[in-house]
Amino acid sequence: MIILGLDPGIGRTGFGVIDTSKANPYVRCGCLTTPQNLDVSDRLNMLGEDLSQLIATSHPDVAAVEQIFFGKNHSTAMLTAQARGVLLYILRQNNIPVESLTPLQIKSRLTGYGAAPKSQVQSVVRQQLHLDITPQPDDAADALAAALCIA
Amino acid sequence: MIILGLDPGIGRTGFGVIDTSKANPYVRCGCLTTPQNLDVSDRLNMLGEDLSQLIATSHPDVAAVEQIFFGKNHSTAMLTAQARGVLLYILRQNNIPVESLTPLQIKSRLTGYGAAPKSQVQSVVRQQLHLDITPQPDDAADALAAALCIA
Repeated sequence: MIILGLDPGIGRTGFGVIDTSKANPYVRCGCLTTPQNLDVSDRLNMLGEDLSQLIATSHPDVAAVEQIFFGKNHSTAMLTAQARGVLLYILRQNNIPVESLTPLQIKSRLTGYGAAPKSQVQSVVRQQLHLDITPQPDDAADALAAALCIA
Repeated sequence: MIILGLDPGIGRTGFGVIDTSKANPYVRCGCLTTPQNLDVSDRLNMLGEDLSQLIATSHPDVAAVEQIFFGKNHSTAMLTAQARGVLLYILRQNNIPVESLTPLQIKSRLTGYGAAPKSQVQSVVRQQLHLDITPQPDDAADALAAALCIA
């Protein structure tokens, strides 16, 4: 089963692809980025087209999409939510079932402890995917963590 | 010029269409609705497809899309923002330029007063569109108000 993990953001959406049928399940990871100088509509459009492209090349059977962490900055959260809406729409258009996961669920499933530090989650990601170093940026590693949760 | 006003929501997105080339600019208004028992992905997908249909039948030249009012209920705001993301994506896919308007901007442009009560905004909508009664539900009237702002 090919699993696509996504950590949504308007400027940077982390993605991670794993294939549970392989001895070494790691396939690829990275970020879908949009430039800050474009308006929101253009950025959402670019994000949607980049995800469509990623789906076309990675053929995921299912997706794990992080829920939005609701921090202090409302306007950032609102932009992230709009980006997440586009990601869910594109996944649904491609008939890819989605599991939504909160940051707490991801930490809890991977480490057994919902308040685990990021470094501990990253350590589990490295170990389970036989990686020597943590993928950068963090959004890509977070996306792999989400994908591992439903593996 | 045909203007599409939108008041985003996951369960109910108000829409209003006006045609400024006509003596009576009112064309139509209503709501795009999604059932609460579906999951978020399915609701976003339905919303996107309904908007595509509305665009295909109304041929708007431009859209006025309300910004999200950030109230006490964070999870409602996050769902609304995800819906708004899909609306912006579909508009951009159809090459329809978007103007984003805050509730304060809409009130201010239509009544000259940013803290005007809803009834006063609705009165302007009725007057400018030669309507005897305020369209129902409120979301449809709000969408017409947004459209009038860029007329």
